[in-house]
Amino acid sequence: MSKYDAIANLHAPSALIGVEIIDGIGILTLKNRRKLNALRRDMMRRLTESLESFAEDKIRVVILRAEAGMDVWSSGHDITELPRPGQDPLPYADPLEETLRAIRAYPGPVIAMVHGSVWGGAFDMVLSCDIVIADESASFAITPVNLGLPYNTTGLLHFVGRLRENLVKELFFTATPIEAKKAAEYGVINHLVPSAQLETHTMEIARQMASKAPLAMAAIKEQLRVISDYQPIAAQVFERLQDLRRKAYESADYREGIAAFLEKRQPAFKGE
Amino acid sequence: MSKYDAIANLHAPSALIGVEIIDGIGILTLKNRRKLNALRRDMMRRLTESLESFAEDKIRVVILRAEAGMDVWSSGHDITELPRPGQDPLPYADPLEETLRAIRAYPGPVIAMVHGSVWGGAFDMVLSCDIVIADESASFAITPVNLGLPYNTTGLLHFVGRLRENLVKELFFTATPIEAKKAAEYGVINHLVPSAQLETHTMEIARQMASKAPLAMAAIKEQLRVISDYQPIAAQVFERLQDLRRKAYESADYREGIAAFLEKRQPAFKGE
Amino acid sequence: MSKYDAIANLHAPSALIGVEIIDGIGILTLKNRRKLNALRRDMMRRLTESLESFAEDKIRVVILRAEAGMDVWSSGHDITELPRPGQDPLPYADPLEETLRAIRAYPGPVIAMVHGSVWGGAFDMVLSCDIVIADESASFAITPVNLGLPYNTTGLLHFVGRLRENLVKELFFTATPIEAKKAAEYGVINHLVPSAQLETHTMEIARQMASKAPLAMAAIKEQLRVISDYQPIAAQVFERLQDLRRKAYESADYREGIAAFLEKRQPAFKGE
Amino acid sequence: MSKYDAIANLHAPSALIGVEIIDGIGILTLKNRRKLNALRRDMMRRLTESLESFAEDKIRVVILRAEAGMDVWSSGHDITELPRPGQDPLPYADPLEETLRAIRAYPGPVIAMVHGSVWGGAFDMVLSCDIVIADESASFAITPVNLGLPYNTTGLLHFVGRLRENLVKELFFTATPIEAKKAAEYGVINHLVPSAQLETHTMEIARQMASKAPLAMAAIKEQLRVISDYQPIAAQVFERLQDLRRKAYESADYREGIAAFLEKRQPAFKGE
Amino acid sequence: MSKYDAIANLHAPSALIGVEIIDGIGILTLKNRRKLNALRRDMMRRLTESLESFAEDKIRVVILRAEAGMDVWSSGHDITELPRPGQDPLPYADPLEETLRAIRAYPGPVIAMVHGSVWGGAFDMVLSCDIVIADESASFAITPVNLGLPYNTTGLLHFVGRLRENLVKELFFTATPIEAKKAAEYGVINHLVPSAQLETHTMEIARQMASKAPLAMAAIKEQLRVISDYQPIAAQVFERLQDLRRKAYESADYREGIAAFLEKRQPAFKGE
Amino acid sequence: MSKYDAIANLHAPSALIGVEIIDGIGILTLKNRRKLNALRRDMMRRLTESLESFAEDKIRVVILRAEAGMDVWSSGHDITELPRPGQDPLPYADPLEETLRAIRAYPGPVIAMVHGSVWGGAFDMVLSCDIVIADESASFAITPVNLGLPYNTTGLLHFVGRLRENLVKELFFTATPIEAKKAAEYGVINHLVPSAQLETHTMEIARQMASKAPLAMAAIKEQLRVISDYQPIAAQVFERLQDLRRKAYESADYREGIAAFLEKRQPAFKGE
Ligand code: NI
Ligand code: NI
Ligand code: NI
Repeated sequence: MSKYDAIANLHAPSALIGVEIIDGIGILTLKNRRKLNALRRDMMRRLTESLESFAEDKIRVVILRAEAGMDVWSSGHDITELPRPGQDPLPYADPLEETLRAIRAYPGPVIAMVHGSVWGGAFDMVLSCDIVIADESASFAITPVNLGLPYNTTGLLHFVGRLRENLVKELFFTATPIEAKKAAEYGVINHLVPSAQLETHTMEIARQMASKAPLAMAAIKEQLRVISDYQPIAAQVFERLQDLRRKAYESADYREGIAAFLEKRQPAFKGE
Repeated sequence: MSKYDAIANLHAPSALIGVEIIDGIGILTLKNRRKLNALRRDMMRRLTESLESFAEDKIRVVILRAEAGMDVWSSGHDITELPRPGQDPLPYADPLEETLRAIRAYPGPVIAMVHGSVWGGAFDMVLSCDIVIADESASFAITPVNLGLPYNTTGLLHFVGRLRENLVKELFFTATPIEAKKAAEYGVINHLVPSAQLETHTMEIARQMASKAPLAMAAIKEQLRVISDYQPIAAQVFERLQDLRRKAYESADYREGIAAFLEKRQPAFKGE
Repeated sequence: MSKYDAIANLHAPSALIGVEIIDGIGILTLKNRRKLNALRRDMMRRLTESLESFAEDKIRVVILRAEAGMDVWSSGHDITELPRPGQDPLPYADPLEETLRAIRAYPGPVIAMVHGSVWGGAFDMVLSCDIVIADESASFAITPVNLGLPYNTTGLLHFVGRLRENLVKELFFTATPIEAKKAAEYGVINHLVPSAQLETHTMEIARQMASKAPLAMAAIKEQLRVISDYQPIAAQVFERLQDLRRKAYESADYREGIAAFLEKRQPAFKGE
Repeated sequence: MSKYDAIANLHAPSALIGVEIIDGIGILTLKNRRKLNALRRDMMRRLTESLESFAEDKIRVVILRAEAGMDVWSSGHDITELPRPGQDPLPYADPLEETLRAIRAYPGPVIAMVHGSVWGGAFDMVLSCDIVIADESASFAITPVNLGLPYNTTGLLHFVGRLRENLVKELFFTATPIEAKKAAEYGVINHLVPSAQLETHTMEIARQMASKAPLAMAAIKEQLRVISDYQPIAAQVFERLQDLRRKAYESADYREGIAAFLEKRQPAFKGE
Repeated sequence: MSKYDAIANLHAPSALIGVEIIDGIGILTLKNRRKLNALRRDMMRRLTESLESFAEDKIRVVILRAEAGMDVWSSGHDITELPRPGQDPLPYADPLEETLRAIRAYPGPVIAMVHGSVWGGAFDMVLSCDIVIADESASFAITPVNLGLPYNTTGLLHFVGRLRENLVKELFFTATPIEAKKAAEYGVINHLVPSAQLETHTMEIARQMASKAPLAMAAIKEQLRVISDYQPIAAQVFERLQDLRRKAYESADYREGIAAFLEKRQPAFKGE
Repeated sequence: MSKYDAIANLHAPSALIGVEIIDGIGILTLKNRRKLNALRRDMMRRLTESLESFAEDKIRVVILRAEAGMDVWSSGHDITELPRPGQDPLPYADPLEETLRAIRAYPGPVIAMVHGSVWGGAFDMVLSCDIVIADESASFAITPVNLGLPYNTTGLLHFVGRLRENLVKELFFTATPIEAKKAAEYGVINHLVPSAQLETHTMEIARQMASKAPLAMAAIKEQLRVISDYQPIAAQVFERLQDLRRKAYESADYREGIAAFLEKRQPAFKGE
C-alpha cells in the first residue's frame, strides 16, 4: 500500500488526509483538525488522486469520513483560498469541483459517514456521495448567502436531486443548519444511527455493497449521474444566468461578505 | 408609500389586496372576503404590479398571505371568469399565470403564509412561492378534474418540483384536500407552526432572509427557476399534448363540469 | 364480458391472470401462485392486452393486484426467461417493458394494490402504477446487482421520479428489501392501511377517481408521463451509457450471477 | 390489389387520389384536378390510409406525385376547410398534419416527384418527403403570411432541416414562389431533370432504393426523423410561443386575410 | 419623428447613427465614418433603443445599413473597448450582445443591406438579421482567432444556423474574408445584386414584407429564434466550455493578440 | 521524433500509417495500399494514439491524408472485422468510433486532404475532420444499406451537421458515390483544387491556421462539437431507436448483406 503512503506524503501538511483499505473498502479520512477540515485545494487534490488510485485498484466501495473525535466534519471552503474579487469563485476547474466530479463519477458507491457539523461546500460534497450515514451529532448548512457568493448551476443540481425545491430554497436562503433528525426526515441522511454504531453500521453497508456485481453497479451509478447532472439548459439562458452570477461576484456585497467573515462580524449587504 | 396606495385604488373593489412594507419586508394580503379570495383577474393584476413595484424598490423578501380571520386562504380560480367553452382555460397570458411567473421570477424569496384552506389554482400559487409556512388549519386541494379542466404543463411542473410523482397524481386524480399535518409530511409545507405563532414565525424567517446577500440570493433563485421551469420537451410531443388538452376543454364533459359547479351539484362525466 | 374470458383462455397456464370489471373499475389479478407471480412473458402479454381492452371499453380506473392469500405479490423477472448471455436483458421490446409502458400510458389511473413482497422488475411495475396502496405485509426490493444485470435508463427514471436519488442508490446498491413502514415514509406507498381494509380502501379510492372527468385526467397523466419519461440525454452520452451496460451484460460476472441464482448460492463477482 | 381500390372508393369524389404498385414501388397520385389538388381533409385521410396499407404490404419505396398534365402540383390547404376563426388552424390532429407525420414515419423512402407549382402546406408536404425530384416547371411558395396564419413549430422544423435559416425566413416573409433552378440551388430539390425524363428518372431512383436493405433504411430514416422532429423546447417557452400564435389566429388580421383570399383581393393588415 | 431625433442627439458623437422611417420601413444607418462604423458601446445602445422605438411604433420591417459611400460596412468590435484582460470579452450584458438579441427578437423582419467589408462582430450582426441583401463589394470575415478571443456559444449558434459546419470552421479558423460571390454561394447572402440596384432592390423586398400579416410574421420569426437560439446543453458541459473560454481570455496569447493588433504587427501565439 | 517511430513500429503491418511533423503541422498518412486503407482496428488505434501524441506536443493543426498515388482514399470498414452477427456493428467502443471522437475532440483543426474515392465509414471520418480539401478525383459514398447495417445516431449526426437532410437521405438510401464537383456544391468539400495543387494548397491553409491563437481555436472547436454532437434525445425514444437498430443487425438481411459482399454478388434482401 506504499502508493497510498506516497500520495499521503506528496503534499503540504494542510492536506492531511488518511487513505486506507480495510476489508477491500477504501477509506478516506479528512484529518486537518487545525483547519477544521476546510476543503483546501491541496486536500481536494489528494482526495481526487486517491479516488483515481482506488478506481485503478478496483476498490468497489469507498467511505468518506472525518477523523474520529472531531466535532466538525468539515467547515467547507477555505475562504482565504477563494479567487480574487471579480473572478468566478466556483469555476469548473476548482479543485473542490474536481473532487465533487470524482466522487460522482467513481465507478462504485461512495458513502459519506458523518459525525459533526457540515458547512458550505462540504454539504455539497456529502450530497455528492451516493448515500449518507450519520449520527445524531450531524448538522448541515449551506452558507453562500452569508458571503454573497453566487452558487453555480451544477452545485444547485446536486441539491435538487436530493431535496424538494422548497427545502433547497429554505436551506440556501436562511443559511441555517438543520439538525440530524430533520436532515433524516428531509432525506439528506439515509441512515441515522447512534454515535456508537456509526462506524460498524457504515462498514456493514459498505461490505454488503462490495459483495454485489461491480460492473452492474457502475453502469447504474453512471446512468443516474447523467440523469441528474446533465440537465439541459438553453445556451442563451445559461449565458444569462452566468451574467446574474457575475453581477453578484463582482459586487461590493461580495467583498463585504468576505471582509465581514474574516473580521468575524455581521455583513451589511446593500444589494449592490 | 403613496405608490402602493395608488395601486390599491386603481382597481375594482373585487381586487381587494393589501400592500404594505414592514421592516423592509413586502407584505401582500389577499382580502376579498366576500369572494373567498378567488383569484380574479383584477386581483391577479394587482399582485403582479405590486411585485413589480417591490422589485423596483429592492424589497428583499415578500410575504403572501390572506387577511387575518379568514378560514379560506383562497378558493382558487373564479369559475365565472374562465374563458368561454372551447378556449384554453389556462393560457400563457392569463393573469393568474402572469402572477405565478412574477412570484417565481421575483429577485428575492417570496414566502407563502397559510392559514385556512387553499383550493385549485391557489395551491399552484402557494407552490410557486419559495417556501411555505402554515398553521394546523391549512389544507390544500387541486381540483381541475372536478371541472374537467386539463391542467397545463408548466402548472404540473410546479407540483413535480415539490412533490413525488405518485403524490402529485393522487392529489390531481382525487381532488381531495390534504390536511396540514399530511402536507408537512409530504413536503408542501416548510414549517408547520401553531396558529398563534404563524405571523411572528413568518416575520422572523423573512427578516433572517432579508439580512442575507440579495444578489447571490437572486442568482440562486433564478438558477433554480430555470432548472425547474425550463424542462425541455420535443416540439412534436408538446403539440400532441396540446391536442389532448384541447380535446378535454372542447368536450361536453368540461361544459358539464362548469355547469354542475355553478348549479352546486355532482357532475356526470361521460368521457366525451 | 366474453372478450376478457377469451383473453384469459388464449394463453398458456403460466399466464394465469384474472381480468374483471367491478363497478366500472378494471381489476387485473396476478394469480400464478406456483411461479410466485414471476413476470413471465406470456403473463406480461396478457396484462398488456387487457389494458388495451380496458382502454377500448373506456374503463376509467384500473387496479393491479395479486391474488388474495399470496405472500409474494410478485417475484419479478423469471430468470430462466432472460435473453441469452451477451444480449441486452432489458430491451425495449421485452414484454415486461411493454407492460410498463402500457401502464404508464393508460389513459386513466392505474392503482397498485400491494399485499406481500415485491421483487426486482415487479418493483418497477408497482412504481409505474400511478398510486400505490399497500398493507403492512408489503416489502420492496430491486435486485439487479445480485445478478450483475445492468438496469436500463428508462427503468431508472421510473425510480428517480418517485424516490430521492440517495434512496434510489441505496435500494439498487444493497438490493435489500424495505419494509412497508419505511416504504410509506420514503414515498413508495401513498396509503398504508391495515390488511383487512386493503381491498375496500383501494376500491373506495378507485371509485372516487372514476367519478372525475376522464379526459382531463388522461391529459394530466400523459403530461406527467412526458415530463418524467422523456428526459433528454445527448446522443453521444447515451451511446456511452449503452457501452457501460453492454460491458456488464457481456461480462463473466453476469453469467456468474445467473448461475449462482439458479444454483441457489452466493455469487462471487470479480468485476470482469 | 382490391384493398387499394376499396380505399379509393371509400371517399367522396373530392378525395380523388390514385393508388398503384408498380415494380414493387407504391405510387400515390394526387388527381383532384378541379380543386387543383388542394389538400382537403378527405384526400389527406386517403393518403394516410394508403401509406398504412403500403407499410403493411412492406412496400419499400413510395412515390408521391400529381396526375400527369397538371400545372399545379398542389394548391395547398383548402382555405374553406380551415377551422373557424379563433381556433388553431394547424392543430396536431389536422388531417394534413397526420399525413405529414405518416410520410415522415413511413418505414422506407418517400420520393416527391414534382411537376408544376407547389403552394403553402403542399410545400411542407414535399419537404416531408425524403427526397425531391422535379422538373423545370416546379416552383415552391409558402404563403401563411398572405392569410395571417401563424405557422406551427413542427412545420417550421420541417423547413429548418432542409434550408438555411435566412432562406426559410425569406420564403416565409415574402410568400413569393422560387423557381426550379433556384430551388435546386437552395437544396429543396435533389435532382432537377428535364420534364421528359421526370418519370423514368424517378422510377430509376425508386428501384435503386428498393433494392437496398429495408430494415437498415427504416432504422436510419427513423433516427433522422427523431433528430430533426424532436427538437426539445422548454415547456414555458413553448407555452409562450403558443400565446403568440393564438394572438395571430384570434386577430382581425387573420379574418381579413381569409376574407381577402376568398374575395380575391389584396388584404389590408393592421397588425391587430 | 422628434422621438428619433431625440435618440440621435442623446449620445456622444461616436454613436453616429441615422434613424429614419421611409414608406413605413424603419431604416438604421451606421454612419461613424471616422471609426469605420466600429461597434462601439454607445452606437450599439442607440441601435437597441431605436429598435425598441420602432417596435412601439409598430414598424413592420427594418433595414440595417451603412452610410452610402463607405467601403467598410463595419470594422466590428472596437478593440479599445474590450473588457480588461482576464474578463469575459463577450458577456451577456455587452451592448453588442444586446443589439444582436434586439435584432433577433424584433417582431418583424430586419434586413441587412451590405455594401463593403464586414469584420468580426459585425458579421455576427449581419447574420442576426433575418435576410441579407448585398452587392459585389461585400465581404465577410470573422476574426477572433487573430486576437485570441474565445467566441461565445450563442455567437457560434448564429453561424451554425446559417452555414454548414465545415464552412463555419473554415471562416473561424482562417479569419480570412470571403468575397460576395462565395458568400452568396455559401448562403450568407440571400440576394446578390449590382451596386446600383442595392437600395431599390432592398426597399422593394422590404415593402413586400411590410404588406404581409405582421402578427403571423412575428409568431413565425419568434418560433424560428427559439429553435435556433435555445439549443439545450447540459449544465455541466456548459460549465466545462466556460472553463475552456476562460483559459483563453486569461491567457498570455490573448494579451499578445490585443497588443499586436494595437501595434499593427503580427501576433506570435504560444498556446499559453 | 522517435516517439512517433515507436508508435509506427508498435503495430502489425496492416496498421501501416505514416506519422510526420512538417513545419509544425502534424501529418497522418493512411498507407495500407494492399487493403485499400480499410479502417482496420489496428490502424484506427494508431491514428487515435498519434492524435493523442500530437495533442501532447501541442501540434496546432493536423492533416489526414492517404498515401500519394492511391486511387482509393479509404475503402471504409474492413467487413471481415465487423462484430459477429447479432452484435451491434457500431458500438461506442469500436476503434473507428474512437478515432472519430479523437478527431472531433482534437484541440485544433484537423484537415482532410482527399484524393480518390472515399467509402462507408471513411466518409464519416472525412466529415469528422474540420475542413475538407479535395481534388477532382475525390468521390464519396456511404454504403450501410448495401450490407443491411443500421447506422448509429452519432454517425448520422456527423452527416446532418454537414449536409441538408434530403441529401443525407439520398446518400444513405442510394449508397451511390457523389463526384467531387457535386460534393463541393453540396458542401462536403471546402476547397476543390486541381490535383497538382492539392498538397501545396492544403499545407498553405494548414500553416495559416497554425499561425492563429490556439486556445481560442480550441475553445471554438469544442463549443461547435458540443452543439453538433450533444443533440439531446429523450431516453425512451433512444431506447426505441436502439430496438429498431437491433432488429436490423439481428436480421437475416444483415447476414445476407455480409455474405453477398464477401461473395461479390448482389444481395437479395427480404426485409426480415
Ligand atoms: Ni427485471
Ligand atoms: Ni466581436
Ligand atoms: Ni462503417
